Amino acid sequence: MTQSVLHTALERFQALDEKISHLESISGLLSWDQKVIAPKKGRAQFSKAYGSLQTEIFDLMISQEMGELLDQLSESNENFDTITKAKIRLRKHFYNRSKSIPSDLYKEYSVLCSDANDAWEEAREKNNYRLFLPYLEKIVEIKKKFVEYYGYEKHPYDALLDEFEPGLTVEALDPLFASLREKSIALLNKIKAASHKTPVEIVKQPFAIEKQKEFNRYMLPQLGFDLDAGRLDETVHPFAQTVNTGDVRITTRYLEDNVLSALFGTIHEAGHGIYEQQISSSFEGTVLCSGTSFGIHESQSRFLENMVGRSEAFWQYFLPKLKEFFPTQLHNVELQEFYEAINTVHPSFIRVEADELTYNLHIMLRYEIEKELFEGKLEVSELPTVWNKKMEEFLGIVPPTDTLGVLQDVHWSFGGFGYFPSYSLGNLYAAQLLKTMKKELPEFDQYLENGHLQPIMSWLKEKIHQHGSLYTPNELIVSVTGEQLNAAYLVEYLEEKYSGVYQL
Amino acid sequence: MTQSVLHTALERFQALDEKISHLESISGLLSWDQKVIAPKKGRAQFSKAYGSLQTEIFDLMISQEMGELLDQLSESNENFDTITKAKIRLRKHFYNRSKSIPSDLYKEYSVLCSDANDAWEEAREKNNYRLFLPYLEKIVEIKKKFVEYYGYEKHPYDALLDEFEPGLTVEALDPLFASLREKSIALLNKIKAASHKTPVEIVKQPFAIEKQKEFNRYMLPQLGFDLDAGRLDETVHPFAQTVNTGDVRITTRYLEDNVLSALFGTIHEAGHGIYEQQISSSFEGTVLCSGTSFGIHESQSRFLENMVGRSEAFWQYFLPKLKEFFPTQLHNVELQEFYEAINTVHPSFIRVEADELTYNLHIMLRYEIEKELFEGKLEVSELPTVWNKKMEEFLGIVPPTDTLGVLQDVHWSFGGFGYFPSYSLGNLYAAQLLKTMKKELPEFDQYLENGHLQPIMSWLKEKIHQHGSLYTPNELIVSVTGEQLNAAYLVEYLEEKYSGVYQL
Repeated sequence: MTQSVLHTALERFQALDEKISHLESISGLLSWDQKVIAPKKGRAQFSKAYGSLQTEIFDLMISQEMGELLDQLSESNENFDTITKAKIRLRKHFYNRSKSIPSDLYKEYSVLCSDANDAWEEAREKNNYRLFLPYLEKIVEIKKKFVEYYGYEKHPYDALLDEFEPGLTVEALDPLFASLREKSIALLNKIKAASHKTPVEIVKQPFAIEKQKEFNRYMLPQLGFDLDAGRLDETVHPFAQTVNTGDVRITTRYLEDNVLSALFGTIHEAGHGIYEQQISSSFEGTVLCSGTSFGIHESQSRFLENMVGRSEAFWQYFLPKLKEFFPTQLHNVELQEFYEAINTVHPSFIRVEADELTYNLHIMLRYEIEKELFEGKLEVSELPTVWNKKMEEFLGIVPPTDTLGVLQDVHWSFGGFGYFPSYSLGNLYAAQLLKTMKKELPEFDQYLENGHLQPIMSWLKEKIHQHGSLYTPNELIVSVTGEQLNAAYLVEYLEEKYSGVYQL
Repeated sequence: MTQSVLHTALERFQALDEKISHLESISGLLSWDQKVIAPKKGRAQFSKAYGSLQTEIFDLMISQEMGELLDQLSESNENFDTITKAKIRLRKHFYNRSKSIPSDLYKEYSVLCSDANDAWEEAREKNNYRLFLPYLEKIVEIKKKFVEYYGYEKHPYDALLDEFEPGLTVEALDPLFASLREKSIALLNKIKAASHKTPVEIVKQPFAIEKQKEFNRYMLPQLGFDLDAGRLDETVHPFAQTVNTGDVRITTRYLEDNVLSALFGTIHEAGHGIYEQQISSSFEGTVLCSGTSFGIHESQSRFLENMVGRSEAFWQYFLPKLKEFFPTQLHNVELQEFYEAINTVHPSFIRVEADELTYNLHIMLRYEIEKELFEGKLEVSELPTVWNKKMEEFLGIVPPTDTLGVLQDVHWSFGGFGYFPSYSLGNLYAAQLLKTMKKELPEFDQYLENGHLQPIMSWLKEKIHQHGSLYTPNELIVSVTGEQLNAAYLVEYLEEKYSGVYQL
């Protein structure tokens, strides 16, 4: 290919990438609007308009033009800079995955997922797994076909992991999770046996919601979340949605009798939000302008929520502030008490309500089930039994109903197999990053004690955030921490924290 | 053309119409978002994404496919039902107008308008018309070329009117406005000479904004605006934006020392909003799903704001309610006093602050200037002089500065010539509709006195709203009222109202 042909191909690719990115930015805003503020009577009609846009985006991403440009550019890949190579890699990843599924099968699958979601809602409401079973069986059956179309080297589940954590394999994940599981269960058993109890009742008083809102808005900028480049709103299920780096919208949920719900919901989503606000603005309008994987994204929210937000040093600064907003409820509360209360460990049935330690056990239970499903070792009909067995094994409790067990998560109803591991990967990445950060920022604890998070956020910006999707998750963690992902850091962090909290 | 070819063409046309309608629905939501709630740091980047979508919509509307389909379908127009004919007519209208402008000229014009808007803002701020003059001269020059490309039968200004009020001509408008102007000036002079003064001070007290918000939200559903199919928000410049018939968003502006600003702003925008909420849902996703013209749209907002909202009967019901929200401010206020206060006539410089009578004089001043500009009888450099001369002639006052005169409106900076007449057309349509409605609903006043607006809104739905853009404005007014638009009804309405208010 001549230089001028190559140059033209690159320009066309960049224009197409920009157009798709613009439409995705729009799609993000629309999705936020419909979840957060759209009046209910307009939503059914709007979803048709939204569908038209989604179809348009999908068609552009797998268009003949995109295919031809990717072919042309891939031939000359060595001529390009890192940024261009990354753009090509990412567009190609999506193109290849999507093109590999026959469009008839994809349509069948989309319709099925829509029906399955309704069936799941009904099944959960009626506590009747059999209502969901035939849909889930069909989803797994089709998803197994997808796996064959996607292709994989060693394990069929690798093809699913690849959607959420590009490059991750069962071979890499199994030892990480095995180690984490074993150590977590051992630690949990120690905590259960401990005589010391945390004063969890101090955060279960009534906290006026208006005051909670004020505190959240006061705290957000101090965490590093720029309210002029984002919004904080309310939804039942908190989430973060990026429109662009200057418009990142997060939500939280306020509960009158549990001040921690909004507090840690907000801190968690702020972690996602700050990541996106700090991506280099030179990546605006390109495929690089978002977090690099679900796992790395989750590492940023978990880091802020847990490593920062559930640390004693953080509350050394913020507890006196919180007391100003809630003098009646908190005036007698000591820092140590508050720290223990927010780090209470309590095995429970519902993943999204789990504490920092047991959360990973909920995830690993799902990971094992998903892996066995796609290995063909487990039938969909066996899921409730296996679920409860593993709950007993991991957490020592058995859900009394499937609604509190196998039916609790929405993910399988849309075929989101391979998604769950991201949550624990986030914790693993976060602990490893914390280790490195503390080496490079020896005053880490003092920063927290003074409510001065800026050096921490600058470090994250420099090492992680600014790069958007430029590097793969693995490239990123190795370049920042100097080694592959290693479960030892999270285990060490958890053991150290809970030894303090529970006086082990 | 065979039936099957025709059938295919029609299906393709409908699919294209739906896609454009969906993207326009999205565009409407985005525009609302950026004006009302988007964080400021994201707006510049988002406007690029928005621009991509606008380009996409425009390209589809003037696409080769659209052109071919319109050609094919037009040949067989007599075979289609009213709805299909209307869709073809509307898409063709836009296609022909847009295609008639060479794309280079259109691009030049778009860039110019963007620069002109900046220049206008600076000129207005600095009270210096000369800063805006060269831009406005260029805009008029290019717009004159547009007029030639659009074509017209009798008067060049007809080509501009056609954008906002399809089918309207100077020949039809001149006598309407001449009569309205003459009678309005005569009435204004009588009012100026009247010894009776209205107690305007009763609405100029401090009214707590939170209470104003509560009253507006209480009132809206009673007007017929469905808050489950829309929203009420705040902006400096109130407006209405449709996403679909189940999602119509209006805004208002609250001023502490002027309770009327938000009150009548909300009622006005609710008039626009109810129109769109009441369009037949069978028109969703088609070009028919919006009001039929700027003038008819304005008739609905003006009808609700003035004929309903500034009537004595309306406040017979609502004043006691308003007093519940503002007992301190209003407890001594009698209905007659309040009615007079909200119908105070006072010639002033700024159009958007004008009362119901003098408003039309502001419009007709602009109409005459625009018409003469496009007749070539007036130079852009002469505008400040002519403006002030006409202000004296129509309203008896002369603006002390151009900022309070010729520079006050944004419209010319984006080349919106032909737009202003819509506002007074709205008043003319509204008065004529009121006349017919009172004949067909003899209990009209009693409905208002009882705060029972439902029969009135149902009448408007049946006669106007449900039809969306199915009929042209002229077809609609003739079919509903039995005659062409006639200024006598507005004149009669104004004379009757102000004879009462000012005891003439």
